[in-house]
Amino acid sequence: MHEGLKKSVCDANIELHKQNLAIYSWGNVSGIDRKAGIVAIKPSGVLYEELTPDKIVMLDLDGKIVEGNLKPSSDAPTHLELYRSFNAIGGICHSHSLSATVWAQAGREIPCLGTTHADYFYGPIPVTEPMTEEEIKTDYELNVGRAIARRFAEINPMQIPAVLIANHGPFTWGKTADEAVEAMVILEEIAMMAIETLNINPDQTQISRELLDKHYLRKHGDTAYYGQNKK
Amino acid sequence: MHEGLKKSVCDANIELHKQNLAIYSWGNVSGIDRKAGIVAIKPSGVLYEELTPDKIVMLDLDGKIVEGNLKPSSDAPTHLELYRSFNAIGGICHSHSLSATVWAQAGREIPCLGTTHADYFYGPIPVTEPMTEEEIKTDYELNVGRAIARRFAEINPMQIPAVLIANHGPFTWGKTADEAVEAMVILEEIAMMAIETLNINPDQTQISRELLDKHYLRKHGDTAYYGQNKK
Amino acid sequence: MHEGLKKSVCDANIELHKQNLAIYSWGNVSGIDRKAGIVAIKPSGVLYEELTPDKIVMLDLDGKIVEGNLKPSSDAPTHLELYRSFNAIGGICHSHSLSATVWAQAGREIPCLGTTHADYFYGPIPVTEPMTEEEIKTDYELNVGRAIARRFAEINPMQIPAVLIANHGPFTWGKTADEAVEAMVILEEIAMMAIETLNINPDQTQISRELLDKHYLRKHGDTAYYGQNKK
Amino acid sequence: MHEGLKKSVCDANIELHKQNLAIYSWGNVSGIDRKAGIVAIKPSGVLYEELTPDKIVMLDLDGKIVEGNLKPSSDAPTHLELYRSFNAIGGICHSHSLSATVWAQAGREIPCLGTTHADYFYGPIPVTEPMTEEEIKTDYELNVGRAIARRFAEINPMQIPAVLIANHGPFTWGKTADEAVEAMVILEEIAMMAIETLNINPDQTQISRELLDKHYLRKHGDTAYYGQNKK
Repeated sequence: MHEGLKKSVCDANIELHKQNLAIYSWGNVSGIDRKAGIVAIKPSGVLYEELTPDKIVMLDLDGKIVEGNLKPSSDAPTHLELYRSFNAIGGICHSHSLSATVWAQAGREIPCLGTTHADYFYGPIPVTEPMTEEEIKTDYELNVGRAIARRFAEINPMQIPAVLIANHGPFTWGKTADEAVEAMVILEEIAMMAIETLNINPDQTQISRELLDKHYLRKHGDTAYYGQNKK
Repeated sequence: MHEGLKKSVCDANIELHKQNLAIYSWGNVSGIDRKAGIVAIKPSGVLYEELTPDKIVMLDLDGKIVEGNLKPSSDAPTHLELYRSFNAIGGICHSHSLSATVWAQAGREIPCLGTTHADYFYGPIPVTEPMTEEEIKTDYELNVGRAIARRFAEINPMQIPAVLIANHGPFTWGKTADEAVEAMVILEEIAMMAIETLNINPDQTQISRELLDKHYLRKHGDTAYYGQNKK
Repeated sequence: MHEGLKKSVCDANIELHKQNLAIYSWGNVSGIDRKAGIVAIKPSGVLYEELTPDKIVMLDLDGKIVEGNLKPSSDAPTHLELYRSFNAIGGICHSHSLSATVWAQAGREIPCLGTTHADYFYGPIPVTEPMTEEEIKTDYELNVGRAIARRFAEINPMQIPAVLIANHGPFTWGKTADEAVEAMVILEEIAMMAIETLNINPDQTQISRELLDKHYLRKHGDTAYYGQNKK
Repeated sequence: MHEGLKKSVCDANIELHKQNLAIYSWGNVSGIDRKAGIVAIKPSGVLYEELTPDKIVMLDLDGKIVEGNLKPSSDAPTHLELYRSFNAIGGICHSHSLSATVWAQAGREIPCLGTTHADYFYGPIPVTEPMTEEEIKTDYELNVGRAIARRFAEINPMQIPAVLIANHGPFTWGKTADEAVEAMVILEEIAMMAIETLNINPDQTQISRELLDKHYLRKHGDTAYYGQNKK
């Protein structure tokens, strides 16, 4: 069952590896069937080269294994918390991609320094608060998900489909597992650009509200006119 | 009609992708048939992997679609303004290539710090003024073209075939679509070199007038002696 | 004899090259058969493209050639000293990989700035003291091994399977030659991340004790729960 | 005639391109037959993809074309001056490789910050004085060669087979065209390492005399013991 979901989640994990955003088993992508309440996720510690759809683990939203012989990604509780908190998302991606991880390790949000960023993300990429001793000791991975949800209390996750876990790395999401990986690719690109922009001009500030609106809204929402399927 | 132009513009777009200067659909190349007054340009939002000559959109210089079933690049009004303003150019390229975009985001022109730069560009790579709220709200893409034309009021666009749009990224051009892409490749290379040069030596100044003249003119103009077709 | 060891050491050397961590003959991997007291190591100055199992040199723990027609790596005395000092290790890797070598050249330990680091190394990557004139002049390569052993007097080498030789480059190790190469790949990745993290935020400090424990121990030791073979 | 020389020079030029050190036609390699007094060099402006042995241009040491239908590299007078000045060299390479060019543009010699550098170059990589207006206007390329020769008045070019032309880029050399390209590959590597080493530790100084001697001399000269052909 859910062969289509397993296949798409397997493909998205392999794509993450092909895009050079995850070596060994350093990343995991999941997808959800909202109607069935079933999440498909990468098994823990399996190399991308050895990943096949039948190894994808199926969980319900409480984390019970519904199908599959392998243990799910150790980050599964984070994924599940995000699916429970953000109703519109259909896929989630976690990686340790170089430049985004660097911003997470630096504990700094990625400012919106150009239209490449504004084309995909409607504002700076937020960073969570550092995990407390309490949050680390018990239900750590679940608490990571809660820290993300708290950080998005006043942000629309579909307008900024990415976050940096302080001292750790990025999570991205989208309507599908595929879109979550695409957001990760783009996050890595703008993270790299932002590092070098501030290298040249440490005082550079974010782009204007008008330019942010223009670029984000020409690709997203009712007034979008970029691409072939927009009005 | 114009099969040769469509093919060369399609190839130039694919080359931009192969050179790792444009992921997904992040860049667009156009070419013009000056006699016919027809511009061939990439369709909006189409992946390079799926681009074929028959998908190239043909416009007149006012932006009316003359041939093609797809919508042109959303940056088409910028391309058209450049063709109207710079009579000698035959091809235009836009990308979000990493290092050139970084300089654009930093709002800094790229100083001429070496002969690699001087071999192709006869001076620093200019950056446009930031777009005003007014320019962003109405006819944004056209106004980007106007900002470029204004910036080149006293610069010969054939001697410096590149510009940085502040907060955005680079445009390059040349006698053909091919040459525009080549200029983008070289711009990326010198942009990267300039970042690291100032990293080592923040006080480094531009090369001397004589060295700039020597290197630019040994490759370009009546006295050129580089290559096989020069005197 | 020892065909399996020769093959695995040959493969590990080739893998080091494939991972872009060693050009020409800039790196060497060895493995040990603890029962037999035999070390298999890359021959000196041989290109990875030309390496085959029969060219691997077999030494006893005093450095006497037991099998093989070629001279062993000039760094063999360092490897042997490490095998004598660290009883639990079964493979060793040396390289001049870019980012790790940069930290070694800078004479700085790599601080633990994120969970990517903590997932593999249980604390900062130590750097040896600079070699003295005396240590350089006589038995240099042996003295490099001794400097490493001294630096690990109070560190468990299986918990931090990597070191930086001041002014030189990294050594890594593991239970097998393969694991030693994997540690080198990961060391390079975290070394690169650490350079850029401090580039953005020069004042960033190491992650908390709790976060280090959580990430290291969820992958290593009795309480590990990452992967398929853990409890 | 000289088919072997033509072939090896052609191959060395192609290798330079394969090593990602020269795009388009940005670099040139030559070799000399000292007995015949004949230099083989890349033709000007020819792409590496189109280079074949029959296109290699043969010159005498005064620059007269002895064989070939194409114009030689515009840098040929620099090559010839180096062959006239440095009797022991048999091959020369020029490129605009990223990191070495960055040091040349910064006008800074590359300090010897580690053993990777010391394994190949017996001290810092020197940079020439900036070319004067006079030197640029007349016989520019010849004067570049003279500036290099002047800089090496008290340096043995076989012990430091590389130089940085201020504001321009690197030249390397060796006993053959092949070795000149190898020196360029290694120069690029140590140039990159040096940039990042000073990025982490701006006050880092050169390695000790003893460590430089140890590493250089274990690979070069009468007392070398690295590799299979040394005593």
